[in-house]
Amino acid sequence: MNKIAEDLKSEFNIYIDEKIQNTSKYLPEKNVIIITDDNVNNIYSEKFPSFPVIVIVNGEQSKSMQTVEGIVSQLIELQADRNTFLLGIGGGVVCDITGFVASIFMRAVSFGFVSTSLLSQVDASIGGKNGVNFNQYKNILGTFNQPEFVICDTQMLKTLPQKEIKNGLGEIIKHAIISGEQMFDFIENNINAITNLEDSIISKLISESVSVKAKIVIQDEKEQNERKKLNLGHTLAHAIEKHSGILHGEAVSIGIVFSAYLSVQKNLLSKETYEKIKTLLIKAGLPVYTDISRKKLADAITKDKKKNSDFIDFVYIEKIGNTKVVKTKISEIQDYILNY
Amino acid sequence: MNKIAEDLKSEFNIYIDEKIQNTSKYLPEKNVIIITDDNVNNIYSEKFPSFPVIVIVNGEQSKSMQTVEGIVSQLIELQADRNTFLLGIGGGVVCDITGFVASIFMRAVSFGFVSTSLLSQVDASIGGKNGVNFNQYKNILGTFNQPEFVICDTQMLKTLPQKEIKNGLGEIIKHAIISGEQMFDFIENNINAITNLEDSIISKLISESVSVKAKIVIQDEKEQNERKKLNLGHTLAHAIEKHSGILHGEAVSIGIVFSAYLSVQKNLLSKETYEKIKTLLIKAGLPVYTDISRKKLADAITKDKKKNSDFIDFVYIEKIGNTKVVKTKISEIQDYILNY
Repeated sequence: MNKIAEDLKSEFNIYIDEKIQNTSKYLPEKNVIIITDDNVNNIYSEKFPSFPVIVIVNGEQSKSMQTVEGIVSQLIELQADRNTFLLGIGGGVVCDITGFVASIFMRAVSFGFVSTSLLSQVDASIGGKNGVNFNQYKNILGTFNQPEFVICDTQMLKTLPQKEIKNGLGEIIKHAIISGEQMFDFIENNINAITNLEDSIISKLISESVSVKAKIVIQDEKEQNERKKLNLGHTLAHAIEKHSGILHGEAVSIGIVFSAYLSVQKNLLSKETYEKIKTLLIKAGLPVYTDISRKKLADAITKDKKKNSDFIDFVYIEKIGNTKVVKTKISEIQDYILNY
Repeated sequence: MNKIAEDLKSEFNIYIDEKIQNTSKYLPEKNVIIITDDNVNNIYSEKFPSFPVIVIVNGEQSKSMQTVEGIVSQLIELQADRNTFLLGIGGGVVCDITGFVASIFMRAVSFGFVSTSLLSQVDASIGGKNGVNFNQYKNILGTFNQPEFVICDTQMLKTLPQKEIKNGLGEIIKHAIISGEQMFDFIENNINAITNLEDSIISKLISESVSVKAKIVIQDEKEQNERKKLNLGHTLAHAIEKHSGILHGEAVSIGIVFSAYLSVQKNLLSKETYEKIKTLLIKAGLPVYTDISRKKLADAITKDKKKNSDFIDFVYIEKIGNTKVVKTKISEIQDYILNY
């Protein structure tokens, strides 16, 4: 059990390498309700602590108000009250839904996560953002609210399909670009061990990745300044996700390359570093290009919830370990997309 | 313009006797969206600041997730973003809905109220609670979130139907019982001037009432202890509201008398004070009795969101100015209701 850096310990109780079997240690003795998805429930329900379980359907389509209302109905049936503790066991969707329901049920109850996917271990379960999609808008309804704890059981990653590992790697490489050469090189040098989920390597990588995110969140929980850096690659990624079924980490990979391209165009980034980033993403098995119509992508940018009137905070790369948020005209980014 | 007690000033910006025409003073220059109901819109739209208006249907049935989703759709159409400011102009329902939408739209935007009903001026708009009903459960989804300001334009009360004045008086008399003899006697001595909305008397009364609530909320925003006192009369009131169309303040009046009755039964309160309270409520034109079946009321108590397993925090009266919250077995309260 490897708790991340001491200075972050009191803020976020993130336990890396802790086992799902030990979850009870962190829970109240009674009045706990588990929220999970059908996939996780099928594989791991025997290891769940003994509390009632609400099961949602696996996948992004469950991030809806309909799912929220379904869960609330079940909470009422289970006689949940203000002292109920909600435990989300699952990936990003389960964590997002659990955090959101916990934030609004009876004006907020406590909650925690057992984070089961690589993407949620390094990203979705860390930082206290939650939300659901509405119409075509991603995460447009949600809150900022920190869980009581996050357990990242790295052994649970072994039952994930390979594409889910890639899904996590998109965000991990994003964190490396924000963090610096050391983490970036570690990934470059160990890419095979990582995709094969070698225990010590993957633990170190998750720990590093969580530290990058947690350090930023501690400085700027509500995303006023520093936290905006974590949106590297996400402007185009969200547009891509609106028009295809590819995974979030894959869309982020394409978005990172676009951001690097834009940074080169603006003389902020060297072509060598652009190539270095692109090469690592390819090595990790991630896509770096989409053939979705440029027109569709350009239109979708106007639906980004991060926009503010005609501008958007776009994250540029200056070098590995140095990213910069610049308020940029949406029409300018759209022009670059149309000619990309 | 009479801002309540100095020590509360920095916490809650509550402006009593301010005029709706001056609302712009408190608003950002742009990117404001107004939420109101059809009643208020019909009477006052000419006095609204010049911003887009979203209109909901007047009445408790609008406190639903459906209304929330309808508003969110319109916010998206109006290209609302993270810097949008939501201004609720209306009574309790408009304030509750506006506060809730503002708390979850894009993980929270800023908001303020022009509070137009007596009930919302003395209660609903003060204290930062918001919420919507779900199935038969009142306010079961919501958050704690303080508005940037609350404007109580007492002139707007003059277009309210008389029963809406009574609706507010239920909560005002509740505040007087919590506060003490001075406020209670003031109401007793001025009951006609109050129901006739005489300017100086009604302003003083609203100011007193807001102070009582604000002082409690400042001590205990999240309702862990002290704030529970504000639920005086509400256990039975919520049960009554589930089974009839009477106004909240009317249900609270009946609930206060029941609480006083229970307090007498338990030798906490004198019969004289019980009669004194009941007499004032009757003088104010409020009901003190319901003929809803005792069985239905007793059953409804189990659906109170304030319950915690088999207990509920019930508010007893010891004397005027002295109320006490005691964890009480739900079955015990049900027995008292069945024999009431």
